[in-house]
Amino acid sequence: MNIILLSGGSGKRLWPLSNDIRSKQFIKLFKSADGGLESMVQRVHRQITKVDDSARVTIATSKSQVASIRNQLGDDVGVCVEPCRRDTFPAIALASAYLHDVMGVGADEPVVVCPVDPFVNDDYFEHLQMLSDLAATGDANLSLMGIEPTYPSEKYGYIIPKTADKTSAVDTFKEKPDARTAQQYIDQGALWNGGVFAYKLGYVLNRAHELIDFTDYQDLFNKYDTLTKISFDYAVVEKESQIQVLRFPGEWKDIGTWNTLTEAMSESVVGKAILNETCENVHVLNELDMPILCMGLKDVVVSASPEGILVSDKEQSSYIKPFVDAINQQVMFADKSWGNFRVLDVEENSMTIKVTLNPGQRMNYHSHEHRDETWTILSGTGRTIVDGMEQPVQAGDVITMQAGCRHTVIADTELKIMEVQLGKEINVHDKQKYELEE
Amino acid sequence: MNIILLSGGSGKRLWPLSNDIRSKQFIKLFKSADGGLESMVQRVHRQITKVDDSARVTIATSKSQVASIRNQLGDDVGVCVEPCRRDTFPAIALASAYLHDVMGVGADEPVVVCPVDPFVNDDYFEHLQMLSDLAATGDANLSLMGIEPTYPSEKYGYIIPKTADKTSAVDTFKEKPDARTAQQYIDQGALWNGGVFAYKLGYVLNRAHELIDFTDYQDLFNKYDTLTKISFDYAVVEKESQIQVLRFPGEWKDIGTWNTLTEAMSESVVGKAILNETCENVHVLNELDMPILCMGLKDVVVSASPEGILVSDKEQSSYIKPFVDAINQQVMFADKSWGNFRVLDVEENSMTIKVTLNPGQRMNYHSHEHRDETWTILSGTGRTIVDGMEQPVQAGDVITMQAGCRHTVIADTELKIMEVQLGKEINVHDKQKYELEE
Repeated sequence: MNIILLSGGSGKRLWPLSNDIRSKQFIKLFKSADGGLESMVQRVHRQITKVDDSARVTIATSKSQVASIRNQLGDDVGVCVEPCRRDTFPAIALASAYLHDVMGVGADEPVVVCPVDPFVNDDYFEHLQMLSDLAATGDANLSLMGIEPTYPSEKYGYIIPKTADKTSAVDTFKEKPDARTAQQYIDQGALWNGGVFAYKLGYVLNRAHELIDFTDYQDLFNKYDTLTKISFDYAVVEKESQIQVLRFPGEWKDIGTWNTLTEAMSESVVGKAILNETCENVHVLNELDMPILCMGLKDVVVSASPEGILVSDKEQSSYIKPFVDAINQQVMFADKSWGNFRVLDVEENSMTIKVTLNPGQRMNYHSHEHRDETWTILSGTGRTIVDGMEQPVQAGDVITMQAGCRHTVIADTELKIMEVQLGKEINVHDKQKYELEE
Repeated sequence: MNIILLSGGSGKRLWPLSNDIRSKQFIKLFKSADGGLESMVQRVHRQITKVDDSARVTIATSKSQVASIRNQLGDDVGVCVEPCRRDTFPAIALASAYLHDVMGVGADEPVVVCPVDPFVNDDYFEHLQMLSDLAATGDANLSLMGIEPTYPSEKYGYIIPKTADKTSAVDTFKEKPDARTAQQYIDQGALWNGGVFAYKLGYVLNRAHELIDFTDYQDLFNKYDTLTKISFDYAVVEKESQIQVLRFPGEWKDIGTWNTLTEAMSESVVGKAILNETCENVHVLNELDMPILCMGLKDVVVSASPEGILVSDKEQSSYIKPFVDAINQQVMFADKSWGNFRVLDVEENSMTIKVTLNPGQRMNYHSHEHRDETWTILSGTGRTIVDGMEQPVQAGDVITMQAGCRHTVIADTELKIMEVQLGKEINVHDKQKYELEE
């Protein structure tokens, strides 16, 4: 199965565990098979691989998510980077061109496009496989997934199928309705539109060439910022008559808020926390090293990271966005392809950061124009390269780097470093990268 | 006025803002005159000085509080250190001997003993002055403060005066009663026992010599650990017939729990916090640098420090002690006589600490047997002395110190340092102090 996972999203609604770099799909809060924790994207990837161990997975995303994807999934997946955000039609067109021109997928092969973050069981991915098989037959140009509704939601679009069969032609599409109208749709046999599309690769490439003047993937990539924002539904789905829907009767959750996310958690606590016996329906998600003690709370979510601390009634938590917009601070933690960092202290002319490199990983070779840095190695072994000179390092070693000095560090084992940045203008954009000749 | 402030208390009930080093009276959470924040002990000291600017204040306390007292009150107060805890009679006897033998207070001079943490207005301290004047007349051997009760509390002892006059002889004392009995006492005209004693210095010294075999302050100090634990009430008050009570009609709060403390706060937020409009009766006390966002909470206190985070229903917060006992972690922040420190990161073989020295202050000259240390100067200027060698330091300088190496730092301006400790056995007891010859 060829599958494109659309990975978008901002860091607002699940603040403070998400931020401008970490979208919700990268938060580790589900129990994994080995007893550790996994993120939504890790969970989805594991489920896909379980249903089809030869599945070719490509994640369509923005540049800001590439490091997190590599950190969490390694090199097991393809990544198609959108140079900027242009809604779902350009994104799916670009990913389709990537599959064809870079990955060598044939125009007759089926492709399934799916959001990266459904909270579902394995039966969902079995239905993706069915959709892929449906697309391969060529009976319709587009095959969609229709989720059997469990309540008259105002949050989803509806698909009204012609019949109640497992697979049916589509009668009409309906935009997000009010609850009363939603109930009327459901009474007519409507399904939720799950945002899943299956097609033969050539079909979408043809639609793309009709709407956009481009030669191949690279050309489309280069002119991506000139494209008009338009959704795949509007550009393709609504104009297509040869379209069918596959009915999905299983569990499906869209976990975009703390309220829905905590409902999907198998345990009430992730991280260090103590709840006394008078707490009811309380969830704690704690990424700080310090303990959280909860007493006498009801229907509350407590969530903590280096970005901040949220304490919210679960219902109220869906109104979080404007408050997070107002906080507007620098990013305090991030996963990188080579490991992660966390800001520990911010002063007017200094910033202290704990850096962890995974074994075998390295930073880019880089310099800063406006700040000096010192590294104190906390644990592990590796090598630093400073202005071309390589030196082994271990716990207790101190490396000082003046502004302008080129530097990197390579981890042989897991390497933890306390980095102190010093200067009058400390910001993430003060970074020049270099090729390293070894 | 000679006044002895009894400063005891543990760090449990106001966790996480208190810990094993910082008792509740040192938490800064009241608005001070200059718009900043002051602690209970700073507030009380300011109020005493306002009522009597020549008041001689001595704080009777344990060794662990001396640094906090010096940090918050400087050298304006005397400190009488109890070598170990032996209840209030030995503590008051030692402080009385200290006043007589060290401070030169005459045996005929009046002394007032008072808890360090009443949350009161200036009229309370005017009543302490009255008690001092009453003690000076010698009409009774002991003069106590009786607080007019506002409700039938089970938490306080009661004094039943003979008359309803402003000053009256004492009829009887009553132990903490149940609420029903308390109401009966109140109907008889009873007053709360405020734990305040005024006497002529010689009176308590005589009692002390009757009960303890000692010559002077230094002798009493030396044998302090051999003394029996006994309260001043039991050893002195209950055996004295010449005793009177001064009626105090003003506001008086005992703020030993989050519930009572938040009632006394003039603002609902201290530190970085955002409360949405659906929060009701919510207090946030945040000593972390990160923001706390509260949504849809009612009757909740949120309190955060490097020790941890408390989120509690206000009523429930009075049951906090056993949960804090169970957390049992190292101290994560402390005020020192020279400034303060805060633990930022703990790893198996390293600990990273942010150290702030106040201008003109210095650490002890010391070494560690089992750990190396590195200092990166974040801001300010000063001098380090390492194995006898003095060097000026400023932002960006790095000092590395091997285990065994003697070191200190002296702040010329406020000096902030990131200290990384490295070793297999990092603990606060690994410290040898030395005299510094300059």
